[in-house]
Amino acid sequence: MTARSSVLPSWREGAHRERLIAFLHASESLPVEQRVAAFDNDGTLWCERPTLVQFDFFADALATATATDPSLASRPEFAAVLGGDGAAIDELGLTRVAFALAELFADMEADEFVRRSREFMHRAHHRSLGIPLMHAVYQPMLELLDELRRRAFTVSIVSGGGTEFVRAVSQELYGVAPESVVGTQIAYEFSRRDDGRPMLRRTAKISSAPNEGAAKVSQIQAQLGRRPIFAAGNSGGDREMLEWACSGDGPSLALLVDHDDPIREFEYVSTAATFEEHEPITTVAQRLDWLVVSIANDWATVFRTKRR
Amino acid sequence: MTARSSVLPSWREGAHRERLIAFLHASESLPVEQRVAAFDNDGTLWCERPTLVQFDFFADALATATATDPSLASRPEFAAVLGGDGAAIDELGLTRVAFALAELFADMEADEFVRRSREFMHRAHHRSLGIPLMHAVYQPMLELLDELRRRAFTVSIVSGGGTEFVRAVSQELYGVAPESVVGTQIAYEFSRRDDGRPMLRRTAKISSAPNEGAAKVSQIQAQLGRRPIFAAGNSGGDREMLEWACSGDGPSLALLVDHDDPIREFEYVSTAATFEEHEPITTVAQRLDWLVVSIANDWATVFRTKRR
Repeated sequence: MTARSSVLPSWREGAHRERLIAFLHASESLPVEQRVAAFDNDGTLWCERPTLVQFDFFADALATATATDPSLASRPEFAAVLGGDGAAIDELGLTRVAFALAELFADMEADEFVRRSREFMHRAHHRSLGIPLMHAVYQPMLELLDELRRRAFTVSIVSGGGTEFVRAVSQELYGVAPESVVGTQIAYEFSRRDDGRPMLRRTAKISSAPNEGAAKVSQIQAQLGRRPIFAAGNSGGDREMLEWACSGDGPSLALLVDHDDPIREFEYVSTAATFEEHEPITTVAQRLDWLVVSIANDWATVFRTKRR
Repeated sequence: MTARSSVLPSWREGAHRERLIAFLHASESLPVEQRVAAFDNDGTLWCERPTLVQFDFFADALATATATDPSLASRPEFAAVLGGDGAAIDELGLTRVAFALAELFADMEADEFVRRSREFMHRAHHRSLGIPLMHAVYQPMLELLDELRRRAFTVSIVSGGGTEFVRAVSQELYGVAPESVVGTQIAYEFSRRDDGRPMLRRTAKISSAPNEGAAKVSQIQAQLGRRPIFAAGNSGGDREMLEWACSGDGPSLALLVDHDDPIREFEYVSTAATFEEHEPITTVAQRLDWLVVSIANDWATVFRTKRR
């Protein structure tokens, strides 16, 4: 019992932590090739309330762009964002708003987008928690990433967010290299400068479906080439990925983060639209025997306590 | 000089080897994040003559399928392959033939395709060299992969071939994990079994452009998220990738394998269709100051001398 406190120290003692540790031990019997873990990002590794981090990044870029070109504010999607008008955004649809915002970065070179993403992530603070965004990540999950890596897992992030935005900080925040980040993918365009040197620029189009639901499973195969045996998520968009991780014969585990802590974090439940309409994802989790982690009860600490 | 013989031992002394080693040393001054290397596969890491390895795999699968369903032999694309009729294949077009062959694996589960690819690669021998396919890889390039990894490079394979086919053996052959293999990507389809369990099956469609030319650059960004500073290739389809690797400010190197050894390997020159029509890729290489590696002169050993 003495050694245990150094493993997953931010996880409270109990059946949930026991089950997680039992899986970690069981995984050690598997060939290294099979030790693949997939983590959703928004709401699973970093806080997604009250607004998505990437939305804040886009809104920040929009505010800057509008300062030099005030005419941008007349576009309905942009007006809704600039005015912080949640109802208007909902009415337009978040997808339409997101595509409009992505246009702000169209034609930008790939490297420049990474630079801007990093600059924002190191400058901005969480809207309501007041902590730096780089600290609005879940300490217990960082500890889990480390435990998996200690067992030679290939740890990947499978996010509905923009691939490049997550990649910009994935190494620093999570120790995950860019090639292990699978997200919604913007299309690129190869061209040449006047002197013939090649150039790679973003477009405002995505090259495949938004990385949610069944698309997460297809994209894991397309980009990582291996089925995970561990997956963690928190929303309906993670359902298929979590099921996929548990569809093999050997040891596997699906972990669902339950946002049930209105004091230290937020309280909300996502629904899964597949099969049963709008069934709470926590209900799906119970039926499929996933490990449902309660932020309120299972985590002694919620947010990151120190820099990596 | 004593230590040197243990580095790149299959590379003959001379200006080419010196330049390669100078790049390796120069790379050590860069942040690890920038140390990314991209290797083409066919003709760069493994032998692509007289036929592509993946073509042999497809042809083998076709022969097996035809044994149970002789009617397959009446399809023109299949008849050309079964008859080994190169002229007929050229007339139909290799792309059309390749897509027809890919249909043999449509609806197959992702894992099963990997299993079959591995089985073939461990069973088959090279058509004319007589050595096992798993040995028809270039020993000097294996040594280069090791030297790059010794310097903390992220080593990737960027192939025009099917992603999953290369991934099936990339770890064993090259020490490259599946997520670092970028190739022509088949589309997948998520579905469920009767009992509700998820299933992921191949289609006969590719999900983006064949991974050649400018597509290699876009795909490197999409899948790996970083620009390489070293790239190796051997054909016109590698041109943009090699230019891309040398388009940054710091140390970089583009390496072109020149197949000029009809005795130990094969003698042929690919052409680059971009800009100047059908310009030999070796001419492009001279103009852009790439390191052109002569198999005849620069490699003391051509094929793999031992199992990894």
